[in-house]
Amino acid sequence: MENSPRLHNFSAGPGALPLEVIESVRRELPVYRNTGASVMEISHRSTAYMDIEASARGALRRLLGLTTDWHILFLQGGASMQFHQVPLNFLPPGGSADYLVTGTWASKALAEARLLGRARCAASSKDSAFVYIPEANDLDPSAAYVHFTSNNTVFGTQYRKEPQAPVPLVCDASSDFLSRPIDLGRYGLIYAGAQKNIGPAGVTLVLVRKSFLKRRNAPLPTMLDYGTHAAKCFNTPPVVAVYVVEKVLRWLESKGGVAAMESVNAQKAALLYDMIDSTDFYRGTVRPQARSVMNVTFRLVDPALETGFVADAQEAGMVALKGHRSVGGMRASIYNACPLEAVEDLVAFMRHFEQING
Amino acid sequence: MENSPRLHNFSAGPGALPLEVIESVRRELPVYRNTGASVMEISHRSTAYMDIEASARGALRRLLGLTTDWHILFLQGGASMQFHQVPLNFLPPGGSADYLVTGTWASKALAEARLLGRARCAASSKDSAFVYIPEANDLDPSAAYVHFTSNNTVFGTQYRKEPQAPVPLVCDASSDFLSRPIDLGRYGLIYAGAQKNIGPAGVTLVLVRKSFLKRRNAPLPTMLDYGTHAAKCFNTPPVVAVYVVEKVLRWLESKGGVAAMESVNAQKAALLYDMIDSTDFYRGTVRPQARSVMNVTFRLVDPALETGFVADAQEAGMVALKGHRSVGGMRASIYNACPLEAVEDLVAFMRHFEQING
Repeated sequence: MENSPRLHNFSAGPGALPLEVIESVRRELPVYRNTGASVMEISHRSTAYMDIEASARGALRRLLGLTTDWHILFLQGGASMQFHQVPLNFLPPGGSADYLVTGTWASKALAEARLLGRARCAASSKDSAFVYIPEANDLDPSAAYVHFTSNNTVFGTQYRKEPQAPVPLVCDASSDFLSRPIDLGRYGLIYAGAQKNIGPAGVTLVLVRKSFLKRRNAPLPTMLDYGTHAAKCFNTPPVVAVYVVEKVLRWLESKGGVAAMESVNAQKAALLYDMIDSTDFYRGTVRPQARSVMNVTFRLVDPALETGFVADAQEAGMVALKGHRSVGGMRASIYNACPLEAVEDLVAFMRHFEQING
Repeated sequence: MENSPRLHNFSAGPGALPLEVIESVRRELPVYRNTGASVMEISHRSTAYMDIEASARGALRRLLGLTTDWHILFLQGGASMQFHQVPLNFLPPGGSADYLVTGTWASKALAEARLLGRARCAASSKDSAFVYIPEANDLDPSAAYVHFTSNNTVFGTQYRKEPQAPVPLVCDASSDFLSRPIDLGRYGLIYAGAQKNIGPAGVTLVLVRKSFLKRRNAPLPTMLDYGTHAAKCFNTPPVVAVYVVEKVLRWLESKGGVAAMESVNAQKAALLYDMIDSTDFYRGTVRPQARSVMNVTFRLVDPALETGFVADAQEAGMVALKGHRSVGGMRASIYNACPLEAVEDLVAFMRHFEQING
């Protein structure tokens, strides 16, 4: 039986993966290399799996220029678990941390930290429904860290560059990880659920600087102590998810790495935002200087047309354009694996839809 | 390029999955049904994924006879995370829990509980290197729960039936989940990393009785509160792992369910243990009445032959027979998905190896 056709996938996450990666996974079923079993059935202590992890780490080190000052961890539970794990490890008794609140996920991160200790909202754009990135001019030089969310998947805003902070940054980079170069020197820890830019759901990448790791609290529950996973492969990792991530990382390298991605991603976003700005039929939902290169959020000026827009787009071969259920409207998520051609087709569809309905 | 042949896979975990399941995964790449994308790339809020989860829950309810008194949760982090999460939720301030210590994992569970409160070792077989299942005649009627590990993957022992306890049982069933019927009425909570009997690594099944869930502590970190996940799909689940689990559960149903599995599993284990007992060349490592039906541990009387045994077995098409790195020797893990034929071939190989080397 033939599979249905692949469509342009604008899902906010789990999101599109490179077709080359999917095809490679398919080719390696039902047997992975010479293991006698599929990758789903091999021990995490086997050479075959350890080679996969080592290859993934190597690719990631090359992509971001990570020195041996950095640990690379493959954890589980998503960014939501990191909202707890970060302050559990790094919010010291009697100390404080600063949180920059730019959307849904940043708010949740702050709320979790406050279950454990003193966490301060050091800047927020909540007053305007998170349509901009707030200045952070009053950061606490004695804070244990400054937490920020580099890209806001729900609202469609993104930091242009890292906030200036007097202490190490901790970043939820789930929705723009490896989409552009970053200024590593500013960070103590970076975490990212894989299911947007780097793989399937089920693995969370954590990069933690060794000197920052040393500051953690003790004792900690074993599984929630970053030190446990920095020291060794402690328990069964999410083997299949790491296996796919390794393929995505090698694909990224083959495409020229994060600098090349930044350039293509900028091109894709410009195509869409230019289209939106060229007409009154569509309108962007956030301030132009805060617009995300990853999640392009927009409305139709006549909201009554939005259901038809999603349905017609699906007909035209473009799926998952509906905005997050908490805000409505449209959202085109154009992560690394979303090809330029998909965005060109979307722009053409938007013009066509306007001609018919405008 | 042709794949290498599939071999008999005796891995302790991640372990063998039914070939039908692997083939079905392959057929559904690169596009899952009519979604326009692979299952790795679809939103966890999509109908396609929600149908997968609903089907998995339905199959599990039928397999175990779970009424609506039970929540079914698909969590992350493996059993090791449950070692923390169980006492965090259910060990009340000032209260106590009883732990039955029958091996590596049970010891770790106890140690994690002790980081949080009063956890008592109510029985242990550590005095004899965990080669038997200890009686538990002195359980505390005021304990919050009694924790036990139904099957001990490392040492190869298994409870024949649930321990008699005056309070709800909490069970780490990672390595024998769905391998036989259980007496549900005795349990408050059952957890199992999927990667032995029910799927790939990356998802942990948790069954929790509603009345037991009500006893949990508050407040709790959101992600570690079982109530969070019982109430709704809170964050991105490990989509691909759940997808494979759903296929394994339907496969189990097609094979006659847990009662049929119990019968085949008993037959497989008997073949192996009978072979081991029929000669002085091999010897079992645990007391006969405690032998696991899932993980058959044995030694060669001449340990110098063990490396050759593993190598020759691999030559003969049988992989992952080496025992856990902490105890050495041999271990044949013969979970649900290990066919009778694989065990017959292993027994024939063992006879042959003895003839040549005995």
